[in-house]
This record gives sequence, C-alpha cells and structure tokens, in this order.
Amino acid sequence: MSVLETTVLETINSPEDVKKLSLEEMNILADEIRKGILNRVNLIGGHLGPGLGVVEATIALHYVFNSPVDKFVFDVSHQCYPHKMLTGRKEGFTSPIEHSEISGYFNYNESPHDPFMIGHTSTSVSLATGMAKARDLKGEKYNVIALIGDGSLSGGEAFEGFNNSSVLGSNFIVIVNDNEMSIAENQGGLYKNLKELRESNGTCSNNWFKAFGFDYIYVEEGNNIQVLIDTFKKVKDVDHPIVVHIHTLKGKGYAPAVEHKESGHWSMPGLLNKAEDSGNYEIPECYETITKDYILNKVKEDKSVIAVNAATPGVFWWDSEFRNKLGKNYTDVGIAEQHAVAYSSGLAKNGAKPIFGVMTSFIQRSYDQLSQDLALNNSPATILVYWGGISSADATHLGLFDIPLICNIPNIVYLAPTCKEEYLRMLDWSVEQQNYSVAIRVPTCEYISTGVEDTTDYSVLNKYKVAERGSKVAIIALGDFFGLGQSVKDELKSSLGIDATLINPRFISGVDEELLNSLKSDHSVVITLENGILSGGFGEKISSFYGNSSMKVLNYGAKKEFIDRVPMDELLTSYRLKKELIADDIKSIL
Amino acid sequence: MSVLETTVLETINSPEDVKKLSLEEMNILADEIRKGILNRVNLIGGHLGPGLGVVEATIALHYVFNSPVDKFVFDVSHQCYPHKMLTGRKEGFTSPIEHSEISGYFNYNESPHDPFMIGHTSTSVSLATGMAKARDLKGEKYNVIALIGDGSLSGGEAFEGFNNSSVLGSNFIVIVNDNEMSIAENQGGLYKNLKELRESNGTCSNNWFKAFGFDYIYVEEGNNIQVLIDTFKKVKDVDHPIVVHIHTLKGKGYAPAVEHKESGHWSMPGLLNKAEDSGNYEIPECYETITKDYILNKVKEDKSVIAVNAATPGVFWWDSEFRNKLGKNYTDVGIAEQHAVAYSSGLAKNGAKPIFGVMTSFIQRSYDQLSQDLALNNSPATILVYWGGISSADATHLGLFDIPLICNIPNIVYLAPTCKEEYLRMLDWSVEQQNYSVAIRVPTCEYISTGVEDTTDYSVLNKYKVAERGSKVAIIALGDFFGLGQSVKDELKSSLGIDATLINPRFISGVDEELLNSLKSDHSVVITLENGILSGGFGEKISSFYGNSSMKVLNYGAKKEFIDRVPMDELLTSYRLKKELIADDIKSIL
Repeated sequence: MSVLETTVLETINSPEDVKKLSLEEMNILADEIRKGILNRVNLIGGHLGPGLGVVEATIALHYVFNSPVDKFVFDVSHQCYPHKMLTGRKEGFTSPIEHSEISGYFNYNESPHDPFMIGHTSTSVSLATGMAKARDLKGEKYNVIALIGDGSLSGGEAFEGFNNSSVLGSNFIVIVNDNEMSIAENQGGLYKNLKELRESNGTCSNNWFKAFGFDYIYVEEGNNIQVLIDTFKKVKDVDHPIVVHIHTLKGKGYAPAVEHKESGHWSMPGLLNKAEDSGNYEIPECYETITKDYILNKVKEDKSVIAVNAATPGVFWWDSEFRNKLGKNYTDVGIAEQHAVAYSSGLAKNGAKPIFGVMTSFIQRSYDQLSQDLALNNSPATILVYWGGISSADATHLGLFDIPLICNIPNIVYLAPTCKEEYLRMLDWSVEQQNYSVAIRVPTCEYISTGVEDTTDYSVLNKYKVAERGSKVAIIALGDFFGLGQSVKDELKSSLGIDATLINPRFISGVDEELLNSLKSDHSVVITLENGILSGGFGEKISSFYGNSSMKVLNYGAKKEFIDRVPMDELLTSYRLKKELIADDIKSIL
Repeated sequence: MSVLETTVLETINSPEDVKKLSLEEMNILADEIRKGILNRVNLIGGHLGPGLGVVEATIALHYVFNSPVDKFVFDVSHQCYPHKMLTGRKEGFTSPIEHSEISGYFNYNESPHDPFMIGHTSTSVSLATGMAKARDLKGEKYNVIALIGDGSLSGGEAFEGFNNSSVLGSNFIVIVNDNEMSIAENQGGLYKNLKELRESNGTCSNNWFKAFGFDYIYVEEGNNIQVLIDTFKKVKDVDHPIVVHIHTLKGKGYAPAVEHKESGHWSMPGLLNKAEDSGNYEIPECYETITKDYILNKVKEDKSVIAVNAATPGVFWWDSEFRNKLGKNYTDVGIAEQHAVAYSSGLAKNGAKPIFGVMTSFIQRSYDQLSQDLALNNSPATILVYWGGISSADATHLGLFDIPLICNIPNIVYLAPTCKEEYLRMLDWSVEQQNYSVAIRVPTCEYISTGVEDTTDYSVLNKYKVAERGSKVAIIALGDFFGLGQSVKDELKSSLGIDATLINPRFISGVDEELLNSLKSDHSVVITLENGILSGGFGEKISSFYGNSSMKVLNYGAKKEFIDRVPMDELLTSYRLKKELIADDIKSIL
C-alpha cells in the first residue's frame, strides 16, 4: 500500500492551484483524480461510479468559480471525491494512512469548501436556495451552485427545492449531472423527459426544468473540460436561476464501473479489477437471502404480493435476477421514500400485499407518511427496516433512530425478531394479516437459526416471550441484542451467582403489562437492551411502566448523539453495552 | 337552527341517484350543495372556498364514474364536502344535529366512498397509485381517480406520486383542480406553468404534466357540469395515466369567499355574511401577536432576520399586512415543509436568521430534514411549533407528536416556555445565538404574562427552573402544562398537606441531572406533566433517569392513539390529567 504518485495533483493544494493549469495539465489531473478514486475505493471502499463521472466537471467548476467564496452544495455527496481532492484533501485519496481521516461525504468539519455535512439525497437545491437567499438579504455578491445527479431529482425534497429556487430572482446555478442512472436504474416519467432532452440536445418542447421557469443550458459533452469551462464561464454571475444540464458517463475511466453501473455505484474494498466486479457475489444464507426466497415463493402462490423499494435494491441483495423473476410484482420507486410508504398503503388498502424494504436512515424520509398515510389508515403493509443498530458508520447513515421514529406512532406494530425462525414467522404473519401496519426490524448482528420453528400468533399483540425464567434480575433483550442479553445472563450467573430471567420482547411498539407486573414479585432489577438510541426508544417505556413501583430499571442503548465513524468497541464501552459493565451496574444497585 | 330544505339533494342517497338526474336538476343540486356547505361552515366552521369551487366537478364525477367500485382519492380533503353530500352523508350538511357526526375530512370509517382517512396534503396521487397497482396485480378493472388541488402540487410527496404514477402503464386519472390558490397564494415556479397552461387553453409548449409523460386534457370551464361530464366520459376507462386539468373558481357561489380567497379557505363558525368576512379580525394580545411584533421589530434592526412558513401563514396570523411589511424578509415556500427546513438550514448556515413558523401536525413532514439538513449541521435556525397539545381535533390534525418527533433528534434544543416573558426571551436568545438548532413549542393553552422579565441565559442548556421548592413530591410541569402543575401543587397542599416542589423544565430536549439528583434527598415521588403523547416524550426520560434509584415517577400526558374529535374533558379524564386524579395517584404510592 504505497502512496499514489501524481504529477499535477500533487501541486494542487486549493482551488487556486487549479486556476493556474493549462488544459493539458487539467486532463492529466483528471487521470490522476481517477487514480485517486480507484486507489481509495480499492482500499477502504466507497462511491465509485459517481465520482468517476464528474472529474472533468469538478475541475471545470473549480477553474471557473471561486470556492469557498462561491458556495458549492453537492447533493448526497456520492460524487464529492474529486472536489475533496481539489480542496486540500488529496491525501485522503493518495496516501493510505490518511484514507479514513477524510470522510466519503461533504463534511463542514473537514473544510470550508463543504458548507454542510450531507449524506441523504435530494437536499442540495433547498440548502443552496437558503444560502442564496441569505446572500441576498445581506447584500453580498457571489455564486451559489448546487450540483445534483439525475437520480436525486426523484426525491420530493429536490422538487420542492426546484419549485422554490426557480423564483429566487437572483444568481442561482443548478448543475444537473445526468449520468442516466440513480443508484440503480432511474424510475419514473421524469426520466423520459431527461432522455428526450439528451436526444434533442436540450431542445425538445417539453422541458421539466423550464416548466418551473428556470433558464436552461444543455451540455452533451459533460466529460469535456474545455466545453464545461466555456459553459460555466457563460453562467457565472448570472442574475437569475439557471439549470446547466450536463451529460456525463458514470464510471468513466474504469471499464467495469461503466459496464456495470449499479454494482459500480459503490464498491466494497479490495474488489477492483477482480472477477467479482460483475456484482454477482455468492453470499451465505442470511436475513437478506431468506427474505428474497420468502418473497419469490410467496409471489408464486399469491400474485397480490409485491416487493417495493426506494432506489436501494442492492442493500437487500435484490439483484437483477430477483427483480426479473418478480416482474410486475416488484416496484422500485426511485429515491422517493414518501411515495414508497403512501404507495404501499394504497396497495394494502386495495387488497395487495406490499413488502417495502428500506434502510433505517432513509425511512426517516417518511415519518409523516408512516403516520398519516399508513398507520392512521391501518393499512396492512409490511415494512422491512434494514441496517438498524449501532455502527461505526458515517454520521449521515446511522441506524440509530428508527425505534423512536416508528414505535411512537400509534397503530404500527413494530417487531424485533431475534433469529431466522422468528423473522420468517413474523414476516409471513404480517403479509397475511389484514389488521395492522407492520414494520419488522431485520437483525443486523449475527445471523442466528435456532432450528426451532416459531409458531407464535403475533396477532396477540405485545406478548413478550420469557426465554428463561429466573429471579432477582430480569433482562429484556430486544431483537439482535438478544445475544447480548444471553451473555449478560451468563455473566450474572458466573460473577454474582444470579439466575436472571431472560426475556425476548419481540414487540418494540408495546409493553407486556401482565408480564412486567408478574416480575414484581421476585425481581428487583430489570434491564433493557436495545440496539439503537435510548432517547424515545423501547427501554424508556419499561422505565415509565415501573415508575410507580419499587422496581429498579436500567436502560442500555445508544446516547442521543450524532456519531461519525467512531470504532464499535469505543461506542460499546461508552454506552456500557458490555456484559461485564452491565453486571457491574447491576451489582451496584442490588 | 332548522334543517336545510332541499328539493334535489334530498333525493340523493348515493351516487346512483346522481346518475338519474337531468342537467337542469344537477344545476339545482349544485345550488343546494353550496347551501349545504355554507350551512355547515356557518354552524361549526370548516373549509369553505375549496368545496364551493368543486361542486360541479364532484357532481360530474359521480355522474360519470361508479364509486365505490371506481376509487376516488381526494387530496387533503379540503374539497370533500360535496362528495360527502352525494355519498349518503348529506345530513352532515343539512341537519344541525348531524353536523359534527360527519367529519370534515375523507374518512374510511364513515363511508366506502372514502377509501382513506386524509387530512395532510399532497398524498392523493401516491395513495391512488398504490390502489391502481393493486387493481392491476389482481386483474381487476375499474377507474382509479385522484383529485388534487393546484396548491397541493407543491408538496414533494405529490411530485413523487406524479413521477411514479406516470409510468404505471394502466388506467389512472388525476384531476388537477386548479383554482389558482393554495391555502394562501401559490408559491413557486410551477405556478407560472399552470398560468401559461390556463392562458393557452392547455396548449403552451412547456407542460409540467406532459414532461412526466402524462396524457393531458385542459378544461377551462371547470364549473360547467355538462363540459365536465363530457370530459370525464372521454377519459373514463382510459388505458394509461392522464391528467385532467380543470380551471375552477375557488369560493364560487359565495361572493366574500371569491373576493377573499385566503380568509375564505377556512372559516370559523358564525362568520358568514358578517362584516368579519374580510378576514380583518381584531385579536387580543396572544403568542401570535407578540411573535409578529417581535419579528417586525427585529427585522427593522437586522436585515438578515427572515420569517419562513409553509403555506399556512393564517395559522400564526401572518396576514397580508405583516407579509407586506416584511417584504423580502418573508418567505412562504408553499406546501413544502421539507424545503422549509432545508431552506432555513441554508439561510442559517450562511449567516441569516430564519424563524420558521409551522403547525405541529405538519412539521411531521420534515423529520429527516430536521435531523439531516438542520441538526446534523448545527444550523442556528429557529422553529416555532404552533398548536401542539391535546385537543379534540380531527385525527389528521392532532398536535400530540412533536415532542417525540423533535426531542429525540440530537443537537436540537427544544424549548417549552410557560409564559410571554419566557417565550420572548427564548425567541430572542434563539435568533441571536449561533450554536444550536432551536425549536420552541408555542403554548396553546392560556396566554400568561407574569410581568416579570426573564433574564435566563438559555445557552446553559438543560437547566430546569425550580419555581417553588418543597419536599416529598416534585411536579415537573412542562410548557403550557405549568398551570396544571400549579393546580396539582395546590391540590396536594389542600388534600394531603404536602408542600410539593414545582419545576418548570423549560428544556424538552434534555434532562437536568444535577437538579434531579438533588431531589433524591427529600423527595420520594416525581410526576411529569406534558401536553402531548407520553410515548417517546419528555416524561419517559425522567423515569429512565431515576431507574437506578428508589424515586417513584409518574408520567402524565396523552396515550399513544389516534383520537378523532373526542371531547377535551373526556380525554383529560382518560389521561388522568386532572388535579384530583393526579393527587389520588400520588396518594396511592406515597
């Protein structure tokens, strides 16, 4: 793992240095930036295709505009690596030891060239509109530029941003980076219009951007530095909102990412120039594979079952084979989580059986739809929430917040399975029942199969399962922290000689009052374990329940904080989520 | 209050009866429906202009289509009164005693002609898309029709619905009811396109709907029953998605609502044909008026202060005079809460001082923006949350959920003032500080001025205020339940002889650990009072804090349930939010 050698990039310490380059040097720089992206992604993984596609555009932007006086807002940050390399952070791409110092996302803690921390899609136009309006209120003069990919256009927030920014009445530049792809394929009618625009060199009669009143320029050669420089010079200091629609090649410069745009969008480390680049991985049985098998089998017997997702099929390994097999029983709504939930409600209310797969950090987009469109209507849809839990992820992609988000909404049954057998039973129960909106938190820790069939009737709501009955201390271990609960029980036995009760609550969204009351007779301490934020979560409800009694309750989970790439062990220690620490706490109050 | 006498309407018990009418009878029916709307709104208040504008369209829809086999989804429900009158619920409009039996919103509990309960905007297209897809999966044949007002088009969820429904590939009809108004004026570039479409009779080159690939018909005479019937017949059983853009007159048939479209959108009871119809009310000093005064004064001295709202300025009494005075220091983003939060973040991050006013039930639209766009970026914006609290409102407009929604997001300081002086101090602190994203829960109960200036430095976070120090029992009374806390204290004194401690926490989003620890020495019971849902809220955090001690904690607030127009007294009794009931509870555990 040696430091990447570059000739032009090594001279670039700020955008000022870009402005000094000849075209020839800029083209060399483009090659070196691509090498930097590949270098980093191969070592620590990351977004590949998006950055490769905007190398020329980023060079041209920094050549023409004057960051950080001019303000850039890059949507979702998937394409920000070239920008980072040109704004004093090239070592994050060329030098192995600094790779993980520099995040993969826009991050205002890193650089004044990143005005925000950004990791969710479709936010750039709205954020930039606010910046432009602040500039105007303060009587300042500079350019505000949002760069947004075609895929991000499908999110409602982007639309709201376009609708409002178009009437700003002052300088505002939106670069639409059209690489003909979202994370997976683009979805929706808007993309037919983009195609028409590309095919007509921007001249077709219907123009979605012009329909808002935006001025508009189309650039077919979106990977040509000189053409881009000429265009950006033309729009610099414009006195009104304008869209510059550039056509780029996602993955440019790395053939596998050009050929396989979906698997080349983001790559795990160590995969570059390996056979696996095709995206066809053999994966061992896990929650993702059994979910796919379940859905495929179910659709065979019931044509009203439909798998829904919002632009991230790869997260659940819903690969093209799976999608093709499902055919019309599959909908990718694109980046449109609000629609996904409302659509699922409509499906369920009219007799279909939707299964909506979604990542924890993106279900956040649809709180109101979960409440108003789904739960208030008791629509019997199934939502599979993936990637929930404490992790060392970027601050924008934490899986910590879904429990308070979902379990405090009336009418939603939120379930936390602890093993394969429970998961499949819950999933099938949810799909077949007609009375409740159901969400299931797909475990993220170890994949566990007990081999014991689960025959629970989950229609009997909020019935916790006593895994082992003991006394003095009861451990309520939610979902994929059941294993931790087991180890705490063992620790209490070995270190304190206590036979603790171990409970698998299964229901995140309700309290088993009967069971909790029954514990009062021979328990003095209850602890709760949850793999998420404590604030507003599951454990606090147990504490509240016991408030009028002498039962002591300790809640374990994550603190209310945005953590950014903190090592797991550090987090678990900080949150005292270790069997020895928990046993110590219990000992101190017994 | 007599029963409204009608000649045609009285014969209509279901849409089948509409199909039997002559054009002449339908025109009489239109008049009688209008009388029904006015009759109801005058008696119990409600949405006035929207329903008056779609009387003809609703008659024509029920004449041509076959509800409930054909499925109607009415966006936001502001315009559903005529639909209710034609679907077996006319007594809710003609007979005073049944007025409040029938809700003002789409409600599946009332009728199979309302497939959903709906009260938030911009949801219809997505919900209907799901219904249409379910129909297709099941091989059924009928029409699915969404009716959406021009104002609702600005919400991101509507856009996501348009983008996805346009590629449905089967029967799908969207009636765009264009009355040239949102709740207040429409906002954004899209509305220039609607104007062009109206002015060109639907033929202008840029067409926002066609840009998605929708088939499209324009109907200028949107209040002409025969024209509408002819049009709807043309699109009935269409095999692809189509937009029928009808131009209607908001408030038609009631001059004051036509002339004053904003104040005529929704009316309080008893105002019809009164001088107040102009919308110019004299209102006594209240949180709304002092907020307006504060903003106006602040803007005079600081041009970077800006008031932001999302389509509901009337809720805060931000009338046209206020808006005009603010000029460029005011932004209405239209129905676009996601944008409003991200825009506020952009404003704050670039040095402006945004004050975003929003209703509790609509801030729900922006959970992800509050988390990712605002809080993660520590953008020092101020959000004023209005109408939070327990009420006998419709299930779609409950103010119960903002505390768990906001206070569990890291980095947001959520404040609960108890009086005018605290409120103004918090507001000014928030506007002037640069370190935190701040939300303030504007009290909804009694307006209280203590006359004592508040000089607190709210930068010292999570410092609760001990209003009166006693012993044995501590009452932590949040925000506008501080008055209830006072009365509980009095009750404990008179009925149990206890001098309780009374605490005004002021900070919803944090726990004052030092104070809570100090209570342990001479208190055995702590109670919490909050005007919102308990689940995930403030009180549970206090319970959790005391979990390792012998302190007993009782949490008072609303249950996790969607309540629909339940009388306040019934709710307060059910939630034991009465001083005598609380005193009884305390007595039982002392």
